Amino acid sequence: MVDWNQLSKQEQTEVERQYKVLSYGVDTILPQDEFKKKLATSIKEKRPLKVKLGLDPTAPDVHIGHTVVLNKLKQFQEFGHTIQLIIGNFTGKIGDPTGKDAARKALTDEEVKHNAQTYFEQFGKIIDMDAVELHYNAEWLSKIDFAEVLRLASHVTVARMLERNDFHNRYTDNKPIYLHEFFYPVMQGYDSYALESDIELGGTDQEFNVLFGRQIQEQFGKEKQVVLLLPLIEGLDGVEKMSKSKGNYIGIDESPGDIFGKTMSIPDELIVKYFRLASNLKIEEVAKIQADLEEGGLHPKDAKMRLAYSFVEMLYDQETADLSKENFLNVFQKNKMPGELPEVWWEKQKEVLVIDLVKDLGLLPSKGEVRRMIKNGGIRIDQEKIDDPSLIVSVVDGLVIQVGKRKFVKLRIQ
Amino acid sequence: MVDWNQLSKQEQTEVERQYKVLSYGVDTILPQDEFKKKLATSIKEKRPLKVKLGLDPTAPDVHIGHTVVLNKLKQFQEFGHTIQLIIGNFTGKIGDPTGKDAARKALTDEEVKHNAQTYFEQFGKIIDMDAVELHYNAEWLSKIDFAEVLRLASHVTVARMLERNDFHNRYTDNKPIYLHEFFYPVMQGYDSYALESDIELGGTDQEFNVLFGRQIQEQFGKEKQVVLLLPLIEGLDGVEKMSKSKGNYIGIDESPGDIFGKTMSIPDELIVKYFRLASNLKIEEVAKIQADLEEGGLHPKDAKMRLAYSFVEMLYDQETADLSKENFLNVFQKNKMPGELPEVWWEKQKEVLVIDLVKDLGLLPSKGEVRRMIKNGGIRIDQEKIDDPSLIVSVVDGLVIQVGKRKFVKLRIQ
Repeated sequence: MVDWNQLSKQEQTEVERQYKVLSYGVDTILPQDEFKKKLATSIKEKRPLKVKLGLDPTAPDVHIGHTVVLNKLKQFQEFGHTIQLIIGNFTGKIGDPTGKDAARKALTDEEVKHNAQTYFEQFGKIIDMDAVELHYNAEWLSKIDFAEVLRLASHVTVARMLERNDFHNRYTDNKPIYLHEFFYPVMQGYDSYALESDIELGGTDQEFNVLFGRQIQEQFGKEKQVVLLLPLIEGLDGVEKMSKSKGNYIGIDESPGDIFGKTMSIPDELIVKYFRLASNLKIEEVAKIQADLEEGGLHPKDAKMRLAYSFVEMLYDQETADLSKENFLNVFQKNKMPGELPEVWWEKQKEVLVIDLVKDLGLLPSKGEVRRMIKNGGIRIDQEKIDDPSLIVSVVDGLVIQVGKRKFVKLRIQ
Repeated sequence: MVDWNQLSKQEQTEVERQYKVLSYGVDTILPQDEFKKKLATSIKEKRPLKVKLGLDPTAPDVHIGHTVVLNKLKQFQEFGHTIQLIIGNFTGKIGDPTGKDAARKALTDEEVKHNAQTYFEQFGKIIDMDAVELHYNAEWLSKIDFAEVLRLASHVTVARMLERNDFHNRYTDNKPIYLHEFFYPVMQGYDSYALESDIELGGTDQEFNVLFGRQIQEQFGKEKQVVLLLPLIEGLDGVEKMSKSKGNYIGIDESPGDIFGKTMSIPDELIVKYFRLASNLKIEEVAKIQADLEEGGLHPKDAKMRLAYSFVEMLYDQETADLSKENFLNVFQKNKMPGELPEVWWEKQKEVLVIDLVKDLGLLPSKGEVRRMIKNGGIRIDQEKIDDPSLIVSVVDGLVIQVGKRKFVKLRIQ
């Protein structure tokens, strides 16, 4: 690798500039000095760094928690580095035959392809997918024979594996750990060797696995990757890590109204963390918001409005963000007098499927829910019960939509 | 498998006859009822059982401890069953790259072949090697790919592996266990599947490994093998398991004089055990010797003479056994008067290399030792110091051989 004093003044400045942005919000860089050297070498030799992110094809639901790493990838992209996305189809196709964890059952080729596609579509909202290198790890892992597996395994101790938190806990709780599970980190490490990755990104919960890449690259005489561990963000409950299974998430694919509304529901303590990690605001903007909040010049509710706006803008566009904000203010913020209904400005098409209408207004979380509610007789338009989910509604100014017993919205059009 | 009451009276008698001999001296049969069923099926369908013994090609030195299993194999052979000898060349060629255990370093093809040859030559002293099936496990193990390895591993828990005594102790002593070591039992089990073994033999210290064969055969939908665990015999010290590295062994390849003399040195408590497990005496003969010893009608020294005689007869022939006994009586048993030298009857050729002479008299354990002793001026013949290791000695009646300061032998010829 290139030495610091081999760089021109200008190159040194560029290293510092990239380092500042790329290390921003990162929990741990392992090891820190090597990261700077990687950047220096890249700049000196005009060679983009290869930045790896491994994806588990069994769980394609992408939420705001993932934007922590996606925003980091975007920053690397903006500096001209190369993103390596690896779909773990080898792992995914093997699955976990113990049947203890349904999420780990073997996937077919088609399921893997479908799940990968889902990732790509959602990732495309944040990073430039045209500039990304895509890899499927079965390409190299399926060619490894038993002798090679044993050679790989001969560098790994059982005690080291049992140091990994979840393995340790399962072992001490007398819950079974199956031998093949020990190979997940080994495979992840082998991917880094196969693709000669310079950097690997992961959540702090991935520390054990991503460090394996360094070990296996070294074992095969390659330059070791640098690991950037990103913080995990808590979900809407403010307690547990954001995840689909916990239900405390903001999905990247959700409607603008849902993204806006859910963001407004986060605890105040998380505002700055979400800004720093999940939004795409610049370092200085986040610093300003933080200072204003601390000095009391900015009300937490207004900060959340700004955050919610930035999420919708990032995942949709500015116009949608404006509309979402307006709707939110109309529906949830205005003081409602008795008998007076909350009003929402409707700017979409005038002829609209009843299902889309109710969903887009954010009155129910999904089209499935709307359909179910119609079946149960819980949707009324201008007091008339709707029983045909394929009904097309002609929106007129003043139309009243009712969901269940208590949710009312009056539509306004200009 | 065949049911007991599907057998004719005659077939039932044959099962009982084989069972009595084959289970004699066995420590544990797992599971006992299946062993009888295997025999019954074999007899009913006139199909020999496949009886497996796996060999580690890294340690080809065969000693009397191995005759426990070799005698058992011979009994199976005599009933017409088929012996499967498996050379673990796949394992041996991978070795243990940790360098912690020199015996486990990777072997070349040539070394494996040489070691296997050493086994075969020595085994040939006890079993009929022409009737044995020979296999090298690289034949099937080298073809397994990563996906298959993971599938195998997915049926094995880490906790189960750590129950194995040596793994358990190393883990609790914080000594490293390398991940590939967990695959040794898995490979051994896979061998049983690949060869559809009916029976596997092993020492009681192999229980963990040989039981894996049952698991893996079952995993692949095959009939499970039955495991016969044979006791380990203590070495000459009467304390530790007989082994080359402990130096407490009687090698199969040693000179008749050494085999005889070493056998005479075992503790009395081991006499019956050696007879039962390591000699090829019939069940009834051993029972008689045991009874005579207990009643005091047989002196332990005489029982050991009988044992030593049986070993030399088993590994050489009756004539050599007679000669060894005579020599032993002459050299070690006769009361030696001061100035009177022990005498040995020499019945071999009269012209003999000095090295062969000293070795065959059992005065030194190997030809290498004799050569070294000559170099150090420690061998005299009729008081004349010998310095040429290629010297041919003409044996005459009364010739005195001296080794070192204290060992003298007077040769007698008829």
